[in-house]
Amino acid sequence: MLWLAMTPLPLTLTINGDRLTTTLDALAQIGSQAGNTVRRLAFTPEDLAARQAFSDWMTAVGMAVRIDAAGNLIGRYLGLAAEAPALATGSHLDTVFSGGRYDGALGVIAGLEVVRVLHEHDLRLHHPLEVIVFADEERTMVGSKAMAGNAPRDPARYATVDDEPIQDCLARAGGNWEALETARLSRQDIACFLELHVEQGGILEATDRQIGVVEGIVGQQRHRLTIQGQANHAGTTPMNMRRDALTTAAQLVLAVEDMAQHFPGDPVATVGALQVWPNAINIVPGFVEMSLDMRDLSQEVINHMLAQLKRKIETVAVATRTKIRIQPELAVEPTLAAAAVQDLIVESCEELGLSYTHLPSRASHDAQEMGRFTDMGMIFVPSQAGVSHSGEEYTSPEQCIQGANVLLRTLLKLDLLYR
Amino acid sequence: MLWLAMTPLPLTLTINGDRLTTTLDALAQIGSQAGNTVRRLAFTPEDLAARQAFSDWMTAVGMAVRIDAAGNLIGRYLGLAAEAPALATGSHLDTVFSGGRYDGALGVIAGLEVVRVLHEHDLRLHHPLEVIVFADEERTMVGSKAMAGNAPRDPARYATVDDEPIQDCLARAGGNWEALETARLSRQDIACFLELHVEQGGILEATDRQIGVVEGIVGQQRHRLTIQGQANHAGTTPMNMRRDALTTAAQLVLAVEDMAQHFPGDPVATVGALQVWPNAINIVPGFVEMSLDMRDLSQEVINHMLAQLKRKIETVAVATRTKIRIQPELAVEPTLAAAAVQDLIVESCEELGLSYTHLPSRASHDAQEMGRFTDMGMIFVPSQAGVSHSGEEYTSPEQCIQGANVLLRTLLKLDLLYR
Repeated sequence: MLWLAMTPLPLTLTINGDRLTTTLDALAQIGSQAGNTVRRLAFTPEDLAARQAFSDWMTAVGMAVRIDAAGNLIGRYLGLAAEAPALATGSHLDTVFSGGRYDGALGVIAGLEVVRVLHEHDLRLHHPLEVIVFADEERTMVGSKAMAGNAPRDPARYATVDDEPIQDCLARAGGNWEALETARLSRQDIACFLELHVEQGGILEATDRQIGVVEGIVGQQRHRLTIQGQANHAGTTPMNMRRDALTTAAQLVLAVEDMAQHFPGDPVATVGALQVWPNAINIVPGFVEMSLDMRDLSQEVINHMLAQLKRKIETVAVATRTKIRIQPELAVEPTLAAAAVQDLIVESCEELGLSYTHLPSRASHDAQEMGRFTDMGMIFVPSQAGVSHSGEEYTSPEQCIQGANVLLRTLLKLDLLYR
Repeated sequence: MLWLAMTPLPLTLTINGDRLTTTLDALAQIGSQAGNTVRRLAFTPEDLAARQAFSDWMTAVGMAVRIDAAGNLIGRYLGLAAEAPALATGSHLDTVFSGGRYDGALGVIAGLEVVRVLHEHDLRLHHPLEVIVFADEERTMVGSKAMAGNAPRDPARYATVDDEPIQDCLARAGGNWEALETARLSRQDIACFLELHVEQGGILEATDRQIGVVEGIVGQQRHRLTIQGQANHAGTTPMNMRRDALTTAAQLVLAVEDMAQHFPGDPVATVGALQVWPNAINIVPGFVEMSLDMRDLSQEVINHMLAQLKRKIETVAVATRTKIRIQPELAVEPTLAAAAVQDLIVESCEELGLSYTHLPSRASHDAQEMGRFTDMGMIFVPSQAGVSHSGEEYTSPEQCIQGANVLLRTLLKLDLLYR
């Protein structure tokens, strides 16, 4: 083993594809529902059962398993340098109400498979290698946020299943709300975090690439817009005497779309929810409330889009004689993937003969929180038709294996990089 | 009295303004609610109480009162020529849930006041003069529709209060569902129908005129539009891969507004109701349903607007890769006021020194049904701030009296015209 500390790791190591596939299948049985969906809502019995099974699998390959105060389940495979900061990988086991088999699951199972490969070859890295099952990725992200020191201390801000107090949720999972700060980590604890995940979008499929090298996780802003016009009789109010909140809203909906389409880069902006009052066939709409969601890898782009929209709102409000308000509801800054980590993922793809493309992650992941205190990278594999959070979520066994091999090889390279 | 049959009627006759105002006040007590509103929903005890009071007032001035099969309450003041077709005026006593004191009420009270004036001067017209309280103007218009032979024979098509069967409603008001056809009238029964009503709009106030000479009652079409796009993740779906049902709907909302603003004449077109699915902040809208309401005095204009909108829909559907359907829900043809009747209203205004303007009625009235089988005219008086169907509905006593005097004088002139 000492040999490994001195020389490059054997890059001929590969994932056991059958074992990866079998383990994914076994996991999918826990919380399995009709329509090929999986339901393991965070902190429910199904989630806890999956965590227990995964904990057992980690223990079986000699990992030391612990649960931190935030409910994160962490397996540690010792490195040759016991005191070195860890390399970490992982994802989550919880799902949405009607989730798929790959979202989250692939990342943790592939992390386990990496350790299984090392373990069966009796190999250790220089660094300790940790596999992390983050607590509640889908709703509160309490696990990764606590690791980054960003978890709110107000229990009311955690939207849990059935509104159960977050304190009780954590206790059931082996965490401890009172000691939440102890879950906080630094670069001295984890030198680099690398997450494999299904894309949950259609870029890889559309561009016919096997691997996505994630440039970062987009930042996000949510705002609530309200438009106050004047409700009036749709028959007796001439067009030029109207203050129609819905036609005003329509101008803003199109302005949001147009803005995102024409801004440099590939930002997205969406009005997903819109409500009209009084919402009657024969009444000119008097009030509209609508949502705005903007995401981009560049905080500057998000800021510029917001500024542009605010200027547009001023013009439209004057022209339509309505009152328009915009109020912030959520702001998450982008997290960039470390350039060196991206480079090693690219090297791995090239050595494995896999096609790849760089792309942003437009969905949230635990990696976005990990990236706030240490180097971070993410590897994407294709999602069929870009579909996720659904029974139709699908990534082929071959694609899963390709992703896991890129994960393995990149971790071996990172082990050298951070030595 | 015979003298009257040979020579013009004494055009010095005028309404007793105090009596008109007092009677309007007395009527407003029936169904009076907080906030200066009146609630006399058709066929409810309040509506029936108002009809009974009105029936008594008509009887007191020597009118023969009957109720036809459609529940219309009709008072007949005999004319010198007993066999001549009647001149008719009237409106309705029922209100919306939170209605005002003038909508409907002014027209029937002013009709009664005309007879009171004739009666106290011991005068009779050449024609019989009828004052009609139409049954249920606000919801089903069963009364005037039955008179015009347009009342649907399917009871399910009557949207009554609490969904009570229309048969029971009519029975309680003295009508008879089985004999509905017997309510049908022709030009031989009524030579002309003239209705005084509050404008329920803001044109008279905006143009500073005392009397509105109604050109006709606009036709109306209602359609339901559905837009089928594709619901998708608002974070991971690039702008150019979206099929957003809401941005598509926004284009149509603006197209409808633009069309009505730029079409010749003064048509109105409104999207009053709009619903988004799944209506979530982080999901690109997959489906939208919205209403369309178009009104104009010219059926041709309505048809042209619809054709133009359908062409627009085809273009938009292709450009946005969505499926758009438009389905008719209601079609009411315009009814024009007889030119000769409009001319006599104008003459009356000029003789009384009242300013006036011609304008369409963009709200429905019983006169629209009456106009389908005989000559029809309508006189409008201003509504303060254009407000109606509300406790803020207001027309001053002076304005009510001016309208009633125009009604009286025009009826006297019609009595000569149709002789």
